[in-house]
Amino acid sequence: GLPFNDRQPPAIQLYPLSNYTFGVKETQPEEDPSVKDRLRRLEEHYEQHGMRRTCEGILVCHEHNHPHVLMLQIANAFFKLPGDYLPHDSDEIAGFKTILTAKLAPPASSSLSTRDDAASSDWNITSTLAQWWRPNFETFMYPYLPPHTTRPKELKKLYFIQLPKSKVLSVPKNMKLLAVPLFELYDNSQRYGPQLSAIPHYLSRFRWEFV
Amino acid sequence: GLPFNDRQPPAIQLYPLSNYTFGVKETQPEEDPSVKDRLRRLEEHYEQHGMRRTCEGILVCHEHNHPHVLMLQIANAFFKLPGDYLPHDSDEIAGFKTILTAKLAPPASSSLSTRDDAASSDWNITSTLAQWWRPNFETFMYPYLPPHTTRPKELKKLYFIQLPKSKVLSVPKNMKLLAVPLFELYDNSQRYGPQLSAIPHYLSRFRWEFV
Ligand SMILES: [Zn+2]
Ligand SMILES: [Zn+2]
Ligand SMILES: [Zn+2]
Ligand SMILES: [Zn+2]
Repeated sequence: GLPFNDRQPPAIQLYPLSNYTFGVKETQPEEDPSVKDRLRRLEEHYEQHGMRRTCEGILVCHEHNHPHVLMLQIANAFFKLPGDYLPHDSDEIAGFKTILTAKLAPPASSSLSTRDDAASSDWNITSTLAQWWRPNFETFMYPYLPPHTTRPKELKKLYFIQLPKSKVLSVPKNMKLLAVPLFELYDNSQRYGPQLSAIPHYLSRFRWEFV
Repeated sequence: GLPFNDRQPPAIQLYPLSNYTFGVKETQPEEDPSVKDRLRRLEEHYEQHGMRRTCEGILVCHEHNHPHVLMLQIANAFFKLPGDYLPHDSDEIAGFKTILTAKLAPPASSSLSTRDDAASSDWNITSTLAQWWRPNFETFMYPYLPPHTTRPKELKKLYFIQLPKSKVLSVPKNMKLLAVPLFELYDNSQRYGPQLSAIPHYLSRFRWEFV
């Protein structure tokens, strides 16, 4: 059972979007250009190493005292949370920090990086907010393990990443970092898909303190 | 911030539906027969006491190792979680336990009650799973406080209620208690509404141990 009374989660501090500095770095091409490539690579991974593990981060700030989620937009079209597949042999949290650094930290050579280097590769990964299972080598994922699924092909975990008071974030040239308000995500799976449009549900149990 | 590392919530034990005994008790009429009555009563409460507080419980068991949520069905039509408005002057958790006992515990006079009386009125209320705000005297609720809403009219909290290994539950004659699987609720707001169809999202962060 639950080891402690977490009936009332403590308030989480959210800082204004203007506290964060946004930079640009080298283009990071998408590894799998098509859905077919993606599923074939998943199949290869599954045969060699078993279920694939993916981690994505939910980073939240505020504007006008309303929570906004940081999202990557690729080619002015798809929205994506920062995250990726873990290498099969990597520790979950350590591997996820490496991914977040690759996606969001300024490059080591950058002048932005020297302003912030102690903190730029550290990420405060707190609660698991959600898990999505992929039962087959198909695009469908579910927020539960479907009945009679004994060998899921992928498990994606979404984590709450607590942002510090200020931070430099650098995004590859081919992407944009957007702060999307909860009211825009809610009930909008047509635009954001089933995973991103559910973010307001994951966050609704928290109390916020808008700093 | 979060005071502890709850990255990996501990596994929660779920027991089979067949571990629970279901009884029937006297009809409990719905307090507000129409939506109009309901909103008028909310307005009265708000004028006298401020924001209304509502608590509902998510009680989970399993069948075939898939989580099922206990729900009340009224008049073979509407689905509802066990819960209600709190009296304005009652403590949140104590008041919610009184409501759960009224909705789900066998009546004190029942022969079922004597089999289980120590535990029948105790409820293990653990995590807050979600919160829904009602910004106006209208039917719409949101899983966040909408921007520029300084005086919400109602806050509904959904709690995870950890079921013991076995328990007697008694339901008013005019209702049915159903165990609804997550795969039935998911992506089914047409039948279950926005709040109940989001339950798979609230629960997806947990790991289950099917006993
Ligand atoms: Zn504003
Ligand atoms: Zn591998
Ligand atoms: Zn079965
Ligand atoms: Zn009152």
